[in-house]
Amino acid sequence: MTGKLIGVGVGPGDPELLTLKAMRALSAADVVAHFAKAGNGSNARAIVAGHLRSGIEELPLHYPVTTEVAKDDDAYRDAIDRFYEASAAAIAARLDDGKVVAVISEGDPLFYGSYMHLHVRLASRYPTEVVAGISAMSGCWSSIGTPIAQGDDVFTVLPGTLAEDELQRRLREADAAVVMKVGRHLPKIRRALRETGRIERAVYVERGTTANEVIMPLLDKTDDCAPYFAVVLVPGWRRP
Amino acid sequence: MTGKLIGVGVGPGDPELLTLKAMRALSAADVVAHFAKAGNGSNARAIVAGHLRSGIEELPLHYPVTTEVAKDDDAYRDAIDRFYEASAAAIAARLDDGKVVAVISEGDPLFYGSYMHLHVRLASRYPTEVVAGISAMSGCWSSIGTPIAQGDDVFTVLPGTLAEDELQRRLREADAAVVMKVGRHLPKIRRALRETGRIERAVYVERGTTANEVIMPLLDKTDDCAPYFAVVLVPGWRRP
Repeated sequence: MTGKLIGVGVGPGDPELLTLKAMRALSAADVVAHFAKAGNGSNARAIVAGHLRSGIEELPLHYPVTTEVAKDDDAYRDAIDRFYEASAAAIAARLDDGKVVAVISEGDPLFYGSYMHLHVRLASRYPTEVVAGISAMSGCWSSIGTPIAQGDDVFTVLPGTLAEDELQRRLREADAAVVMKVGRHLPKIRRALRETGRIERAVYVERGTTANEVIMPLLDKTDDCAPYFAVVLVPGWRRP
Repeated sequence: MTGKLIGVGVGPGDPELLTLKAMRALSAADVVAHFAKAGNGSNARAIVAGHLRSGIEELPLHYPVTTEVAKDDDAYRDAIDRFYEASAAAIAARLDDGKVVAVISEGDPLFYGSYMHLHVRLASRYPTEVVAGISAMSGCWSSIGTPIAQGDDVFTVLPGTLAEDELQRRLREADAAVVMKVGRHLPKIRRALRETGRIERAVYVERGTTANEVIMPLLDKTDDCAPYFAVVLVPGWRRP
């Protein structure tokens, strides 16, 4: 009697952007696991709050450190690796008991999602299913009704952590782009967009599709204060 | 009394990958419009077939030419432009009558979707909403349980139509990639992946998430026969 692991994408924030398949996974689950920053509630849990069965076991997984710590720091790497190992072990114990464990993930589980760290540790040992979710970026461009890429456009996702010259070079080469993990990198991203002639069409988005959504042309954002998960959309396609 | 235009993403093929929001849009619509190749049924319509209200007006929009015609051919461009104009006019007539028109789109409407051609013609004139959908590529990597991108990966979507040297150069620069519109470009794509050392991890997918899904390591695909909408996934991230 072995359980089942389900990585469930719950979309960008609007609870209506859950799929029927995600709903079914939630109703079949014995345990729902969710990542969160220690001291914060889980965003994924907030999205599905209205759809959790009463009495379902919840397994919160609290990151030991924030994602703003330098990735090449050994202590950070060790702490985060121990955290993923312990999280996988906690889930494995429930799978060994024959339980169905749904790991809810904001956006799409296998596209820059923390769920991936559990998946690579567990999917070869237990029956596993992944339910695709609407990505944050897709929620953002749909919310503002901005066509992002069309036809033979090359579309690129760039982390805001890239060096300024690399950001510039890659923006120049892309027809359409999304810059993720904006946070403290906003001034650098803004300069790279200006340098490459893309600042006029860049759109700044915070918490896209949620009730607290902030959307504006990047040119209208005069301060440098941006959360880590803010994104900048650089649409490629306009009507010929 | 003006109607409302709703671009509704219906996902990659599995009807369970419809969102709650798409379901609500379908139940509110007076008219459901869908693109199809002349002589073929609409894939988007097949996905939502179980959810259409009886008596809903259907507005099929048949492409006058196939997408395999060279884009720089003037006759093609004229024909397809006239088609989008006529399609927009047919929808506008219903919006003027106060109807709610849902244009159902495979995948995500504003990400390489035909809906975009209607959106740019109508969204400034009528109340418009876009419902994000699960993209084909997201459906594919979820279906096979393959993490695609993580952390500071650069992720790129490349059309198979690119010249071979450009495909090579861009594959080399991307941590993770998806090659779309494979079709007759498969031999070229295969060579570019081999040349850049990425062929071993490339996965070939046809009709991802549908009952007729075909998935295999690209190395196992020995023939050159691929539909236009096949994709090749090049996952960037593996467990460190």
